[in-house]
Amino acid sequence: MKILLTNDDGIYSEGLCALYETLVLDHEVYIVAPESERSAVGHAITIEQPLRVRKVKRGKYFWGYAINGTPADCVKLALYELIGPVDLVISGINKGANVGINLLYSGTVSAATEAKILGYSSIAVSIDAYEDVDYCFAANFISTFINYAFDLPLDLPFCLNINIPHINPYKIKGIKFVRQSIAKLKEIFDKRLDLHDKIYYWQGAEEYTEKDPDTDVIALKEGYITITPIKFDLTNYSSLNKLKQIDDKILKNLVV
Amino acid sequence: MKILLTNDDGIYSEGLCALYETLVLDHEVYIVAPESERSAVGHAITIEQPLRVRKVKRGKYFWGYAINGTPADCVKLALYELIGPVDLVISGINKGANVGINLLYSGTVSAATEAKILGYSSIAVSIDAYEDVDYCFAANFISTFINYAFDLPLDLPFCLNINIPHINPYKIKGIKFVRQSIAKLKEIFDKRLDLHDKIYYWQGAEEYTEKDPDTDVIALKEGYITITPIKFDLTNYSSLNKLKQIDDKILKNLVV
Repeated sequence: MKILLTNDDGIYSEGLCALYETLVLDHEVYIVAPESERSAVGHAITIEQPLRVRKVKRGKYFWGYAINGTPADCVKLALYELIGPVDLVISGINKGANVGINLLYSGTVSAATEAKILGYSSIAVSIDAYEDVDYCFAANFISTFINYAFDLPLDLPFCLNINIPHINPYKIKGIKFVRQSIAKLKEIFDKRLDLHDKIYYWQGAEEYTEKDPDTDVIALKEGYITITPIKFDLTNYSSLNKLKQIDDKILKNLVV
Repeated sequence: MKILLTNDDGIYSEGLCALYETLVLDHEVYIVAPESERSAVGHAITIEQPLRVRKVKRGKYFWGYAINGTPADCVKLALYELIGPVDLVISGINKGANVGINLLYSGTVSAATEAKILGYSSIAVSIDAYEDVDYCFAANFISTFINYAFDLPLDLPFCLNINIPHINPYKIKGIKFVRQSIAKLKEIFDKRLDLHDKIYYWQGAEEYTEKDPDTDVIALKEGYITITPIKFDLTNYSSLNKLKQIDDKILKNLVV
């Protein structure tokens, strides 16, 4: 396959490198990734600044394109200009899980979503660890999984969000197809004083309040590889159908 | 009502000021908005930098809080720390429509989504114009609409994305409840040379390919005020249900 590889931790991130090394054994792999870390950027795009492309080498050889933009910018620029059509877009391996509400903030997931918007099948992959991360099993799993992904009962283009536990691979309980948890995060704003006695805040999330085992949050915690098919239609259809039944006459009074 | 007002064009934007002037006649209005423009930031949050809060005055009086963060940061910080619980969060009035695929990139919409995540009803409001924008009708419409919004057949907290045509108000055809268009945008990457003959790209969108009149994109163009109830669950349930029927034995071979 012709694969576009990106991520939100930047072109020099370990997770991207580990996945590249494994994928390149079987596939034609192109790297287009942000120059530096772009985590928690959500589905941002760069429209007020020019985008620059820098060719990055490894030894004597071309390795990939570094962009001064977001993960979504990278996918757009790759598919429209730098690489052209591919068979699959993979975003990752991200350091840190992308589950629950965090999907909305995730640069990793937004790259996969952007690929689907443009008509390409895509996978976002994250590993549930921040320190001393071993990407080896996750990279091997993805390189095996993508050989089966197109045989799954999915409409094309698909967009899958995959999270991999960071535990001894022999202890992984299996693959679980689960929904995104929409339970609240317990968040904190830590109020501090700087050296000039001025207030600043650090924002962070403490923990998920989710309890349902059939969600990405809980299944991952229980030791499963979680796979969630995702979409980008934000319409709340159940509400929309109710709203459509409102009498037009009532609404007319609201306008002029 | 106690209303939190934010936007993505910054605390000094005309759209925010116009809406404030109208809302403050009937309500207790609090402003927490980005210090400067934060358009197309998607649902970004600031986790790698401290957030600073600056009190902004108008004449002798306190006017609102300016934050060195994204619209989603503003909503979080307002509801957790600066203001506390409110009855309604309004994000806008944004200069430029937020319809179709652009919902994913929109800072305006992300602020409303963030409010709903935190358990508050919210409205994102945008006007379909970029130049010589007259916010008067849109501000009046919103201040009327919110008196009816809680009587609509919506589960609480609701999250509505509203777009208002920038035409003579008497020519507005009415309110239309519509889905988000998910049709592709025609996008361009304009390749240019800088003064040192180095390549750079400007990214932009040309037009929507949507044809369905029952979408935000088309209804707005036809002269309707469009209202789309939105949600933040990205799960593709129709795919998920098919994936759940896959035999576990097949999946086991993929792990170890």
